[in-house]
Amino acid sequence: MLKPFLKVLTPHQALELLKLFGPLEVEQISMRDGLFRVLAESVKAAEDMPGFDRSTMDGFAVRSMDTFGAGEGAPALFRIIGEVPMGEILNIKLKKGEAVRIWTGGAMPSNSDAVVMIEHAEELGRDTLEVFKAVPPFDNVVRRGEDFKKGETLLETGNRLRPQDLGLLAAMGKQNVKVHRKPAVAVISSGDEIVPIDQQPPPGCMRDVNRYTITSMIQEAHANPVWIGVAPDRLDALSSLIKQAMQSADLVLISGGSSMGSRDHVIEAIGSHEDSEILVHGVSLSPGKPLILARVGRQPIAGLPGHPVSAMMCFEQFIIPLIRRLEGEGVLQPFLRPSCRALLSRNIPSREGRMDFVRVRLLRRAEDIIAVPMPAKSGMISSVVRADGVITIEPDCEGLYKGEEVTVNLFARWIGRSLEKEHISGHEVAGRSFGSLFESTEQEKLSRI
Amino acid sequence: MLKPFLKVLTPHQALELLKLFGPLEVEQISMRDGLFRVLAESVKAAEDMPGFDRSTMDGFAVRSMDTFGAGEGAPALFRIIGEVPMGEILNIKLKKGEAVRIWTGGAMPSNSDAVVMIEHAEELGRDTLEVFKAVPPFDNVVRRGEDFKKGETLLETGNRLRPQDLGLLAAMGKQNVKVHRKPAVAVISSGDEIVPIDQQPPPGCMRDVNRYTITSMIQEAHANPVWIGVAPDRLDALSSLIKQAMQSADLVLISGGSSMGSRDHVIEAIGSHEDSEILVHGVSLSPGKPLILARVGRQPIAGLPGHPVSAMMCFEQFIIPLIRRLEGEGVLQPFLRPSCRALLSRNIPSREGRMDFVRVRLLRRAEDIIAVPMPAKSGMISSVVRADGVITIEPDCEGLYKGEEVTVNLFARWIGRSLEKEHISGHEVAGRSFGSLFESTEQEKLSRI
Repeated sequence: MLKPFLKVLTPHQALELLKLFGPLEVEQISMRDGLFRVLAESVKAAEDMPGFDRSTMDGFAVRSMDTFGAGEGAPALFRIIGEVPMGEILNIKLKKGEAVRIWTGGAMPSNSDAVVMIEHAEELGRDTLEVFKAVPPFDNVVRRGEDFKKGETLLETGNRLRPQDLGLLAAMGKQNVKVHRKPAVAVISSGDEIVPIDQQPPPGCMRDVNRYTITSMIQEAHANPVWIGVAPDRLDALSSLIKQAMQSADLVLISGGSSMGSRDHVIEAIGSHEDSEILVHGVSLSPGKPLILARVGRQPIAGLPGHPVSAMMCFEQFIIPLIRRLEGEGVLQPFLRPSCRALLSRNIPSREGRMDFVRVRLLRRAEDIIAVPMPAKSGMISSVVRADGVITIEPDCEGLYKGEEVTVNLFARWIGRSLEKEHISGHEVAGRSFGSLFESTEQEKLSRI
Repeated sequence: MLKPFLKVLTPHQALELLKLFGPLEVEQISMRDGLFRVLAESVKAAEDMPGFDRSTMDGFAVRSMDTFGAGEGAPALFRIIGEVPMGEILNIKLKKGEAVRIWTGGAMPSNSDAVVMIEHAEELGRDTLEVFKAVPPFDNVVRRGEDFKKGETLLETGNRLRPQDLGLLAAMGKQNVKVHRKPAVAVISSGDEIVPIDQQPPPGCMRDVNRYTITSMIQEAHANPVWIGVAPDRLDALSSLIKQAMQSADLVLISGGSSMGSRDHVIEAIGSHEDSEILVHGVSLSPGKPLILARVGRQPIAGLPGHPVSAMMCFEQFIIPLIRRLEGEGVLQPFLRPSCRALLSRNIPSREGRMDFVRVRLLRRAEDIIAVPMPAKSGMISSVVRADGVITIEPDCEGLYKGEEVTVNLFARWIGRSLEKEHISGHEVAGRSFGSLFESTEQEKLSRI
């Protein structure tokens, strides 16, 4: 059943193949557990929101026409005939020249159509009010159904629920929602040289880095990681771990083995399962080229490169879109990252037809942010720790020029706004201590921009 | 102990006051639970990484000098004297003209200093190799300590741990880390008009929206929400819920009550506790002005506006920085959001000295992205569901001009790249169905840009 593609695909071609995989089953959950889940139903408003004309200010409900002509020198006079209690309807119908005290969120009394803010009125004695500003109809009022109307579609199938979407569901009293099941994603690390992190690696061996970066990225993508284990470079062992993984997860990820021999093992181990097909074996991506995408039945399996940085780039470009697909989102894109614009400190060549990810550090020079490409290898985990972000060079681009303005996708969760700080990053101090050597070589280039 | 500030503070002044609050205690946790936790220790490398010179390619380890002069027409000849088994050290010392088969991740044999890629060599028979390309020293090799060196500081106190940082900890075999305790954040909704979402609101009442937006934002900020309850507009009831909240959380958030009377209740209820102080009562922010920040002892308490959108803006601008502060991050900024650049469809006036948040929808017009301000009120939750993002107008800015390029902070987690799609958003379909009315009014303005 083995049908390996022999040519390296473009990132776009590889993404298109993810359409083979459909969304997971639908389940009903409490909206309290709904954050970042993907809707499997569209949600219509069951009622008008708000259900009554509502004041958006503290002040006095009036008939707006009674204020027309009022101004600083010529106040309109009103008689205060009551107060709207919060959470209740006041059974009063306003007549000409009458006003009712009202608070933010209060229900407008019949016949009133605007609220005069406290700041624009003055009480004279117990029940007389001077109004110094005319209000147009519906001023400081949210009208019944203005937020949304009964029957309106509010959220669609495929929407990933954000905090405000849950607020909307709450407003409608929707307590349960239909969503697609959250994918369980199995993780296997492979390679004879990989040892668990609690062991001192014997000479020639390394601790398992990918287990932790990959399971963390699965968590970050709001899916459930399932750790399976480290597979040695033996076909039978790998094959049986894959079988176990397929039984306990919706998507199986195998990182490494790092040797070509082992890589063939991954292909062979997948092929040893019935109704299997290799969909992708290599994508024009750097780092990240040796990606494998396959299916066993309708279940997706991916082989990620062993180099930690390559594995991370592949995860972002292909596994996040695949997770989105399994959850029923109609989008084959990575999650958007925060980004910033920066000027390149030097030329970056790129091979046409290949998507390149260039890790950069950011420096501030006067008003500009400068992106300095890092001299880093994809096997070095520190390169993505030291970097502030990544520049993507699209396949149709042959390179970027020194001084060019580029978009940097940030690893950081903040950017220093202060000009005093030279290095701006989510990990400023670590960056600085790392940077001494690096900066002395790059500083010259910077001053030459 | 009540010392209310009487003037409205600038956002910057309000943020500075958060420095009163220090980080929570330090605890030791397994690095497996470390994602997005904040380090309370700096981490130094306990050993060189990698611990040995390592191949980054499949190929042949050689002495680079033996390849010098080799080319397509003039191959250098080598004798293959062995193969490096993965995860082991080969006890061979290369002599002139000798090569050893090696895989990615393999340990370089003594005396070898570069790897010839398989693509640049051809095997002649069992043990003879032709090399068609000279390799410089250390080509396709990561040298011992090149990723990081023993003793180097890798991560600093105050760093929030990202997937790659956990990979780095794994590489070093660090199984436990010291982090600041994750804040528990109590949530109280207040207001006589607020009913739980499972009730049909009586006339004049509304369901509790803020409970769900606020607890979701707390989750999104990687803190632990603790739901306390709905407080009626009575001093004693609110005061006792605050007491309960202080006992069960590190930070207390009260949203609403929406009336000025209730707002005074929040101030009074906080003031009824010993050693309390109102730090902020009003910030020049729109929406979001009626923010309260206070302390009881060393514990922070915040009063958020009752309007859902105002509450969200205040949360992003002040509560996220406060959570960061409690977790020991040295940053008083909201988390970075994904953003994009867009052209404004019309002038937006703004009052100098006030920070304005303008919700916009994004449309694509030929190559441009157009930001269309939404005619929305802060009491309408649908406005942040329909919007693609928010433009922040800084206090020192009097407004933005039609056609000006602005940064839109996105609510979306993707942007449609295709030009066929007119509306680009994380909630495209919902946006479209919402939008018919809205677009017909805005479309004219658009065509006039």
